[in-house]
Amino acid sequence: MAINLQNILSSNAKNMRRSAIRDLLSVANRPEVISFAGGFPNPTTFPIEDLKSIMQEVLETEGTSALQYGSTEGNDKLRELLAKRYITQGLKITKDNILITTASQQAIDLTAKIFLNPGDTIVCGLPSYLGALQAFWSYQAELVGIKKDEELEDTVKELMAKGKKPKFVYTIPDFQNPSGVTMTLEQRKYVLSVAKKYDLIILEDSPYRELRFDGEEQPLMYSMDNERVILLGTFSKTLLPGFRLGWVIAPVEIIDRLVVAKQSADLCTATFDQAVAAKYMEKDLFDKNLKKTIELYRGMRDHMLACFEKYMPAGVTWTRPEGGLFLFVSLPEGYDTRELFDLAMKENVAFVIGEAFHCDGSGKNTMRINFSFMNKERTEEGVKRLAKAIEKMLNKGK
Amino acid sequence: MAINLQNILSSNAKNMRRSAIRDLLSVANRPEVISFAGGFPNPTTFPIEDLKSIMQEVLETEGTSALQYGSTEGNDKLRELLAKRYITQGLKITKDNILITTASQQAIDLTAKIFLNPGDTIVCGLPSYLGALQAFWSYQAELVGIKKDEELEDTVKELMAKGKKPKFVYTIPDFQNPSGVTMTLEQRKYVLSVAKKYDLIILEDSPYRELRFDGEEQPLMYSMDNERVILLGTFSKTLLPGFRLGWVIAPVEIIDRLVVAKQSADLCTATFDQAVAAKYMEKDLFDKNLKKTIELYRGMRDHMLACFEKYMPAGVTWTRPEGGLFLFVSLPEGYDTRELFDLAMKENVAFVIGEAFHCDGSGKNTMRINFSFMNKERTEEGVKRLAKAIEKMLNKGK
Repeated sequence: MAINLQNILSSNAKNMRRSAIRDLLSVANRPEVISFAGGFPNPTTFPIEDLKSIMQEVLETEGTSALQYGSTEGNDKLRELLAKRYITQGLKITKDNILITTASQQAIDLTAKIFLNPGDTIVCGLPSYLGALQAFWSYQAELVGIKKDEELEDTVKELMAKGKKPKFVYTIPDFQNPSGVTMTLEQRKYVLSVAKKYDLIILEDSPYRELRFDGEEQPLMYSMDNERVILLGTFSKTLLPGFRLGWVIAPVEIIDRLVVAKQSADLCTATFDQAVAAKYMEKDLFDKNLKKTIELYRGMRDHMLACFEKYMPAGVTWTRPEGGLFLFVSLPEGYDTRELFDLAMKENVAFVIGEAFHCDGSGKNTMRINFSFMNKERTEEGVKRLAKAIEKMLNKGK
Repeated sequence: MAINLQNILSSNAKNMRRSAIRDLLSVANRPEVISFAGGFPNPTTFPIEDLKSIMQEVLETEGTSALQYGSTEGNDKLRELLAKRYITQGLKITKDNILITTASQQAIDLTAKIFLNPGDTIVCGLPSYLGALQAFWSYQAELVGIKKDEELEDTVKELMAKGKKPKFVYTIPDFQNPSGVTMTLEQRKYVLSVAKKYDLIILEDSPYRELRFDGEEQPLMYSMDNERVILLGTFSKTLLPGFRLGWVIAPVEIIDRLVVAKQSADLCTATFDQAVAAKYMEKDLFDKNLKKTIELYRGMRDHMLACFEKYMPAGVTWTRPEGGLFLFVSLPEGYDTRELFDLAMKENVAFVIGEAFHCDGSGKNTMRINFSFMNKERTEEGVKRLAKAIEKMLNKGK
């Protein structure tokens, strides 16, 4: 190429970090590899037969509008149906509090864009969702990780003492990605009280909330404070990811700013996909399908845990999540899962290294294991292979 | 809202400009209004019957992958088909030079994001596509407009003398939005030679190229220099906008950077829509439908021009485009189409004020008229109403 790219790339571009997950997936895509790496929903949960008839119906009854440009805010019917659904969870909102986005990844990106100047700080979990970290880095934010929610106030105070008050706190209260942990009611109250005390925004990312297998549901943080929480949702894990449909729920002043940001990002979200999703919800098919998905994933989690119990050598620990798609696994301190990854690839089994989810580069002895994608036999075989790779590593010593 | 937004919005957000078009559209959406404002394709061109069978086929034969997450780069088959299509137009590319984006608006946004630091300059046309200007502003770029391509070298030299060498030149060579003008071969050669001389990137935005009604096709600038041109394309005007499918064609080093930027923007483009579009192209339905679309639009342009000839008062001038979706109309100097807009709304007819397309706030006496959306009767009635509003304005004097 004639152009010297390094000379002309933006500071944003130079600060962007390639997704470890996306790049891993290309390695893990070989058919002989058993991959626990992706966050893929199980394709057997996709309601293909229902979609066939709904797509025909949308094309027949509203084809000309469903294939045309739509409003930046999103399909009115879909926004109304979502509002109704959230109102039953205690939110005080109307459709005007909802912006449909090109999956919740875009919601994260737009939120980052309207709030972040280079050098601005954000508090997030250690670990936290890699795609969010990437979006924040792409606007040159400085990420400050906390291991426990209870560290929030001290962290905020320290940052403020340095003149670096955080722009917002990023959190995934239900079945956190990657840790699988759910915040207790007390933790939610505490985080909100700190946010109120120091006048902070909370970015509540909630892709897995509806995938609860057992345990008690906790309230959405947005339902406890509708003035400083921005709530993100998505169909990617509860219906299907291929439509790229997510949403932001926020005070209308923030929605208004996000709409302007979205105008120049992609004008509007795929109108056909929105029309199909609205029709699907309208026919009350969503909950029926979700119930089956939850049952399937509960069994898959149980199976994964059973395989871990059966095969994992002593010293390895893991979470027992009440929902979501992931186990989070720790090796004894001092071991590095990056090294394990090479051993595991020799055994044809893949995972995501935990370091990728730690904004400070910690978590080197951890890894994320997805349980929603592989079937029972492959899961058992994969855990066996993974255990073998771990044993090799442990035997070799640190 | 408890939060004081002004205190915490990013500089990007403060620099964002609301789309005059999107906001106009909400006014112009009332059924009694005849709107020449949007850039909407005619819905009769949407191949609804073909889509019905193709969607069934995609769901039946590849449903599980078409509804799953896809690669950030996009559907391989679609990229191969697009590469093949562009190779016949003289491009030396493979699918690896193509990134599928959430419509070409996202391609503009990502290009802006990877190249622009606050204060960086871009050269664009006076007028130029509003959505691109919005995207550039949202990264705090400084836009420098030129009225004629021939001004490019002097403008670049002036900017360089001020230490403000432009990051790229943004151009729409075929049926420019909003002017409808197409660059001659000489103009293309000249712009490329200036780009080469001063080591600049050209952003060649090409949404309308395939909608040529008459006249002679000019080569894509990318086909004349594949080292410094970034080419953008879209299905929005040639197939349908509701899938939000566009693409960037660029040297692989640039594609690689755009891929990383897209990972954090929305992970991947709607996989179902991509699979349907690929199947549609594969069945050779695209050109058949495009041919009908061109015939329809040629008639609509002719009709619009005939109505303008018949009704417009003396002093009003307009372009006679060989393709695309728009006429660009000028009132005598000194008149302001913003004022006309209010008069026109009283007559229930809408357009977009030309000032919105001028990065320097000039073009106050101009406006953009879309001819692809309204039917014949409404078009004639709309032009009559618009002419009446203009006459009122001209009679009132400046």
